Amino acid sequence: MALIVQKYGGTSVGSLDRIRNVVRKVKAAAERGHRLVVVLSAMAGETDRLIELARQMHEDPDPRELDVLLTTGEQQSVALFCIAARGMGLDARSLLGFQAGLQTDRFYGKARIERVEARRIQELLDQGRVVVVAGFQGIDPEGDITTLGRGGSDTTAVAVAAALQADVCEIYTDVEGVFTSDPNIVPDARKLKQVSYEEMLEMASLGAKVLDIRSVEFAAKFGVRIHVRSTFTDKEGTMVVPEEEVQEKLVITGVTYSKNDARIVVRGVPDRPGVAHKVFAPISEAGIVVDVIIQNASVEGITDLSFTVPKTDFKQAMNLLSGVAREIEAQEVLGDPNVAKVSIIGIGMRNHAGVATKMFGVLASEGINIQNITTSEIKISCVIEDKYTELAVRALHEAFGLGEDSPPRAE
Amino acid sequence: MALIVQKYGGTSVGSLDRIRNVVRKVKAAAERGHRLVVVLSAMAGETDRLIELARQMHEDPDPRELDVLLTTGEQQSVALFCIAARGMGLDARSLLGFQAGLQTDRFYGKARIERVEARRIQELLDQGRVVVVAGFQGIDPEGDITTLGRGGSDTTAVAVAAALQADVCEIYTDVEGVFTSDPNIVPDARKLKQVSYEEMLEMASLGAKVLDIRSVEFAAKFGVRIHVRSTFTDKEGTMVVPEEEVQEKLVITGVTYSKNDARIVVRGVPDRPGVAHKVFAPISEAGIVVDVIIQNASVEGITDLSFTVPKTDFKQAMNLLSGVAREIEAQEVLGDPNVAKVSIIGIGMRNHAGVATKMFGVLASEGINIQNITTSEIKISCVIEDKYTELAVRALHEAFGLGEDSPPRAE
Repeated sequence: MALIVQKYGGTSVGSLDRIRNVVRKVKAAAERGHRLVVVLSAMAGETDRLIELARQMHEDPDPRELDVLLTTGEQQSVALFCIAARGMGLDARSLLGFQAGLQTDRFYGKARIERVEARRIQELLDQGRVVVVAGFQGIDPEGDITTLGRGGSDTTAVAVAAALQADVCEIYTDVEGVFTSDPNIVPDARKLKQVSYEEMLEMASLGAKVLDIRSVEFAAKFGVRIHVRSTFTDKEGTMVVPEEEVQEKLVITGVTYSKNDARIVVRGVPDRPGVAHKVFAPISEAGIVVDVIIQNASVEGITDLSFTVPKTDFKQAMNLLSGVAREIEAQEVLGDPNVAKVSIIGIGMRNHAGVATKMFGVLASEGINIQNITTSEIKISCVIEDKYTELAVRALHEAFGLGEDSPPRAE
Repeated sequence: MALIVQKYGGTSVGSLDRIRNVVRKVKAAAERGHRLVVVLSAMAGETDRLIELARQMHEDPDPRELDVLLTTGEQQSVALFCIAARGMGLDARSLLGFQAGLQTDRFYGKARIERVEARRIQELLDQGRVVVVAGFQGIDPEGDITTLGRGGSDTTAVAVAAALQADVCEIYTDVEGVFTSDPNIVPDARKLKQVSYEEMLEMASLGAKVLDIRSVEFAAKFGVRIHVRSTFTDKEGTMVVPEEEVQEKLVITGVTYSKNDARIVVRGVPDRPGVAHKVFAPISEAGIVVDVIIQNASVEGITDLSFTVPKTDFKQAMNLLSGVAREIEAQEVLGDPNVAKVSIIGIGMRNHAGVATKMFGVLASEGINIQNITTSEIKISCVIEDKYTELAVRALHEAFGLGEDSPPRAE
């Protein structure tokens, strides 16, 4: 008999019928003797509908009031769930963020959970009830309603699981788990049985959209075991666990890609102390996140600086840099939005030499030029021309033996 | 400079444009230097839409969860109002029931306000802000969400006005005030400048739908001056005030009618002690409210009992009584749903003899038979055949000089 936190996303509760389907799943788990806390998102499309209403009232809606508006979506989900549950013989009680003790900081729209005061959840569990918590929302020290940002219901579920020391936090979604790559472009991508927190974090930040990145950070911090699985089947999904629990030792567990960045090159930069600071200071002051920075070897005191920025910030970054270029007497600023970042991820890299070399070799043999490279202990990312994205991902997936048909191998 | 509580109903906030219109009205009042608390209902139709969703989940929705669902309607109104307000240069902050300190008992769906802990409202007012409170909702001692029942936003407004000792509670609605009768059937019905709490209570309970009856009770108890007026004009409406403040002394202030009752006659009842108890006990045990009871004078130890019950309870009452009739050996039970109750109301009755006689005379002269009569200190109601309703109301309105063209007169 376990204590389980289950989270169902917007698609899973996207209609009254689907909510009934979730009630059936929860009831089945309750009948197996488990104690259950269920975290729900808003019905699919509801949050966007509310944002659109707010925008019609003001192009830049007041963040405090926008949170008051948006939290009605999850409030409706939990109420409808509990009403349906009663009709189906399941004793369920809803709790909103403020009732469930989800205390956050004051940053409306992107609040962080500071603590979970789980007294009421615990009381209702002790009464033998299923507790249904509205995801995505919390309460700040002033008693104001906050939201945790897109994907925030994942974080709600993990935070509640941590506070209750639940045995597992099940994240139900519309995919069957975490895959070695995007099945839409790699047909033989394989569902992973297990993945470590660190790998999951890299995957999430590099484009895999299965789990919200903050929920993984939270899980890693408090050792919450996450089970990512599908609402629409009973198959086992993927366990996200501490590294030491991962049994299947792969060199690489995933190949991801992202087309969210643009590349900028500042050419002909006089190689003087402080010049990099002059280039990056105005960009970081504008809140633009810079990644995969490369500075070429200096030739006759002249160098090139290249890096990526989010595509949404590309125009602003180019404008800022044209001013900077004049000031530091650089030759020119070139921008290219048509790039992609392809990454391989795996804790196995730590113990295996030659992974980077192999990656570069695979891309070279496909005739793909690498523009920038960035690495971490468990990740290598290459910036390439975006038209090669699918080719690169498939070739890397194959070369590292990740497919359904290729048994995992450590080289 | 006054402290004003303004309440806007569902029609007044029935669309984004109408919400903007309300923002303009509130802003105009703020610019006249007033301190303002605004209470809003859900957008027209939203509560019914949510109830329908709940019914699709369960024919008899759990009351606790239904309240969680329904309160999202007002929550959306206040958030959208505050978002629009910002765009229009008005600094407004929303408070939900639990934030505004609207503490109620635990009767979901029909909770009563026990006290208003107005600390946060007061704080926001002191900061120079307009405070926008979600109507209809409160929080019980367990921290659960409750609703006050249909029309509950009126009560929210009056309770907040009482707690803040506001100068006036303005109830904005889609009519221009309280009229001497229903303008739909009495074309020259006149808007009253003032009406006393007691008269308003009788009017509300006898069919006038301008104000929720509990809000009037609350206002009377705490001496809150209510101003009923239209959202869509700037005209003065009707002040609902303590009796001693009413300046225009009319014998009768209103003629109302209701078609919500049915009449039942138990004929040929043996006139023994306890027989009335035997008739009414099973009906009251079933929660059916009985009104305008008449017991005819006994002839040879046999009498008739007649009374009204709400039409919605008519069938059940008839079933119960057929059993009772056998038991007490009554002759028969006759039911008639085609009746109406026509009433005249006025505190002036206290000081004027002959009002009842005049009423009976007016009805008689129109050939209308009176089936049952009930009176209170400030009200006389007659049950008549319902096809005469309009005729009776018009004749009484005219005879008591209530029309636009007839100057008020005390006889």
